[in-house]
Amino acid sequence: MQKSAVRRCRDEVESFLTGKLLPFWIERSPDRRFGGFVTHFDRYGRDSGEDEKSLIAQARLLYTFSSAFRAGYGSVMKELADHAIAYLVERMWDKHHGGFFWMTNRRGEVTKPDKILYGQCFAIYALSEYSLATGDGASREYAEKVFDLVQKHCTDTLYGGYFEMFDRSWELGGPGSRGGDRKTLDVHMHIMEAFTTLFECTRSELHRRKLLEDIAILMTRLIHPRFATGIPQVTPDWRQAPQIKFDIVWGWDRFKQDGLKPHAEDNTSYGHNIELAWLLMHAFDVLGTDLEGYRPKIVAMIDHAVRYGIDPRHGGLYVEGPHEGPAHDLEKEFWQQCEAMIGLLDAYLRFRGEKYLNAYEAVHTFLFTKGINFEVGELWPLLTREGVPIWTHMSHSWKINYHSVRAMIQSKQKLDRILAEREKAESA
Amino acid sequence: MQKSAVRRCRDEVESFLTGKLLPFWIERSPDRRFGGFVTHFDRYGRDSGEDEKSLIAQARLLYTFSSAFRAGYGSVMKELADHAIAYLVERMWDKHHGGFFWMTNRRGEVTKPDKILYGQCFAIYALSEYSLATGDGASREYAEKVFDLVQKHCTDTLYGGYFEMFDRSWELGGPGSRGGDRKTLDVHMHIMEAFTTLFECTRSELHRRKLLEDIAILMTRLIHPRFATGIPQVTPDWRQAPQIKFDIVWGWDRFKQDGLKPHAEDNTSYGHNIELAWLLMHAFDVLGTDLEGYRPKIVAMIDHAVRYGIDPRHGGLYVEGPHEGPAHDLEKEFWQQCEAMIGLLDAYLRFRGEKYLNAYEAVHTFLFTKGINFEVGELWPLLTREGVPIWTHMSHSWKINYHSVRAMIQSKQKLDRILAEREKAESA
Repeated sequence: MQKSAVRRCRDEVESFLTGKLLPFWIERSPDRRFGGFVTHFDRYGRDSGEDEKSLIAQARLLYTFSSAFRAGYGSVMKELADHAIAYLVERMWDKHHGGFFWMTNRRGEVTKPDKILYGQCFAIYALSEYSLATGDGASREYAEKVFDLVQKHCTDTLYGGYFEMFDRSWELGGPGSRGGDRKTLDVHMHIMEAFTTLFECTRSELHRRKLLEDIAILMTRLIHPRFATGIPQVTPDWRQAPQIKFDIVWGWDRFKQDGLKPHAEDNTSYGHNIELAWLLMHAFDVLGTDLEGYRPKIVAMIDHAVRYGIDPRHGGLYVEGPHEGPAHDLEKEFWQQCEAMIGLLDAYLRFRGEKYLNAYEAVHTFLFTKGINFEVGELWPLLTREGVPIWTHMSHSWKINYHSVRAMIQSKQKLDRILAEREKAESA
Repeated sequence: MQKSAVRRCRDEVESFLTGKLLPFWIERSPDRRFGGFVTHFDRYGRDSGEDEKSLIAQARLLYTFSSAFRAGYGSVMKELADHAIAYLVERMWDKHHGGFFWMTNRRGEVTKPDKILYGQCFAIYALSEYSLATGDGASREYAEKVFDLVQKHCTDTLYGGYFEMFDRSWELGGPGSRGGDRKTLDVHMHIMEAFTTLFECTRSELHRRKLLEDIAILMTRLIHPRFATGIPQVTPDWRQAPQIKFDIVWGWDRFKQDGLKPHAEDNTSYGHNIELAWLLMHAFDVLGTDLEGYRPKIVAMIDHAVRYGIDPRHGGLYVEGPHEGPAHDLEKEFWQQCEAMIGLLDAYLRFRGEKYLNAYEAVHTFLFTKGINFEVGELWPLLTREGVPIWTHMSHSWKINYHSVRAMIQSKQKLDRILAEREKAESA
C-alpha cells in the first residue's frame, strides 16, 4: 500500500467512526425510560420494536462505550457506559444465584434467566474494560465475581475446558441442542478475550494462569493440527463434532431450517480464525510475553484466511470454507470484515509482508464501498459476494456495535502507526 | 468365616473401639488451654511435645468425632467435635484469602500459611460430616466455601483434574518438590471422599457433577489400564510420573534419604487400592446409582490386593508392590490394615465370595494380635512382616485416629450386617 492509500483508509475509518457510527448509537440506543439500550433497528435506523434486551447486547454496548472512552472519544462515551453498567447491575444481575441473566424484556423483566457462558464472558470483558477506562472498583469486583462463578460452575474438571449452557441455578444443560455435551471454539475464544482484559485490569496471578490454560486449550484442542484453522464444535473430550444449532442461540452462525449446517464436518470461519489470531497476539502483549512457540500457528491461521478467504475479485472476506481448499460460502458478513481489518493490520505490524496490507486494503475497500449503510451509519449485516445487501437490519441482539466500533477504533490506531512508520522512513 | 468367627471379630472391634481407642483420644487429645487438639503421642501415650497443629490432624479429628457422634457413640463425641470446629474456624481459617492454613503451632499461631489441597479436602469432608451429624448450617457453609475456593484456584482447566500445592494466596507452587507439576492419586481419591460427604450433606447438583467428574478421572486416568491398580503420581497431562517427595509432606509414603522411592516407576499401594475401591462403592451408594460400568475395575482393584497384598503366612496387608506380580515391601502399615478391613467387608457384602471374608479375617487377626498397642489404646504405626513394631509413636500429625476409628465404626456395622444375615439364614 502506498502511503497515500494508508492515509485514505485511516481518514475513512476516522470519519465514519466519529461522523456516522458513534452518532448512530448516541442518538438512538439509550433507553431513558426503562434503562439500558434499545438494540433493534431496521435498515432506516428505526426502532424495529423487538421486545428484548439480551445480555450480550447490553454487555457489548458497555464494552463499546468503555473502550471508546478509554480511546479518547469523549465524555459522552463515559456517560453511556455508566448508563450500561446501571442496567446490567440493577436489572440483569441474579442476586440469588449470581451471574447475569440471559434476557430481559424492554421493561427490564427477566424473560430468560439462563446462565450462558458466552454472555458471562462478555460481561467480564465489558466490566473489566469499564474499570480500565474509568478506574472504577465496583465494576472490577463484578467482573471478578463472574469469573469466580464461571470457575465454580462451568469448568469441566474431567477433560478440561468449559461447559457453556446452564439454567438459572447454573445446572448444566442436557445434551444435543441444549448444549450440555458440546464445547465450542467460539466460547473458548471469547473466554480468552475476556480473561485477557480481566488480567489487564487485575494483574491477578490466578487470572493470568487461567488465561494461559485457555490459550493452550485453543492451540492444542480447537484448531486443526495441520492447517491451524478453527474447529467450531467438539465433544466434551475434544473430538471434532458436527456443528449443531443450540436452543439458546448466541452467535451469528447460520443454519438451514432443519438446524443442520452444510459442510458441518469440515467447516471453518475465516473471520473467526483472524479474530482468534489477533486476540491471541493481544493476549500475549497484555501478558508481556512473546508469542513463544505459537508464532507458526498464528501465521498459518492468518495465511489460511488470506489465501482462501479474501475475494480476489470483489474484495472483502468470505464466510466459511473447508480446512483445506477454496471457500464454499462466498457471502460476506459484517463482523468478519471487522475482525479481518484488525487482524490483518496486526499481522502486518508484527510479521510484516505486504500481502497482509494488500489483504487489508481489499477488505477495507469492499466494506467502505459496499458494506456500509452510510445514510444511516451502521454496517449491512450480510451481503452477496458482489456486495448487495441480503439482510438489512442495522442492529439486533447479536449485531450491535461491538465488532464495528472496535474495528474502527483499533484500525485507526494501527493505521496511524503504519503512517508514522512510513513518514519516518521517508524523512530518514 | 464361621458365624462364631464373625461374632468374635465384631466383639473385638467393638470392645477395642469403646474400651480403648475412643478413651485414648477423649482423655488426652483436647487442648483445653489453646484450643484444638494435641496430636503427638509416644509409645506410652505421653505427649511427645512437637509444637504443631496441622490442618489434616485437626480436620481428621473433627471428622472422627463427628462420625462417631453420628454413629451413636454419645454426647462426648459431639462435645469434642464442637471443640474441633472452634479451633478450625477461629485459628486456621484465612480471613483474607479464604481456605484453611496448613499449620499452626500449639498456641494457634500460623506457622505454614500454605493452601494444600489435601488438607482442604479433609476440611470439606469433616465439616460436611459434622453438619450431617448435628444438622448445623454454619459448618455446611464453610464446607461449601472451601469447595468454591478449590474450584476457583485448584482446577486445571487445560487437562482437567486438580493441582495441589499453593501458597497462602493460592498461587500455584513451582515444579518438582514444590509439587506444582504433579497430580496424585491420593489427592484425587480424597477429593472423591470429600465430595461424596459434601454431596450427602447438600444434595447439590453441582457437587454431584464434580463428584462424578472426579470419579471418572480416577477410573480413566489414575488407575492402571490393565490391572486397575492405583498410579501414585502423574504429570499434569496424566502421564505416569516417578514418585517424588514433596516439600510439604502430607502423606504417609516413605522415601529414602535422597527423597527417592525404590520402584518409583512401578509401584502401587494395596491399602490405597482397597480404600479407593470402597470409597468408590460408598460414593455410588450416596449418589443412589449402581456401579455402572465400574464394577469390573472395582473388583479387579480389590482382587489384586487380595492376591498380592494379603500375607498368607502372618496375615495382614503388605505395604506396596508392582502393578503385576508379588509385593516388594512386606512391612505392614496401620492405615492399610484399617482400610482393608472396611474394603474387604464391603467387597463381601456386595460381591459375595468367601475369599473376601477370609482375607478380612487374615487382616483382622494380624491387627488384633500384633498391630494394636492394647495397653495404651492405639495402633502401632509400622510393623515388620512378622508383626514387630518398627515405629512406635501412637500419633503424629499424619496418623491421628481417622483410619483407626473409621475402620472400627464401619467394620462393626458391616460385621453386624453379616451376622444378621447368618442368623437369618440359620433360622430360615
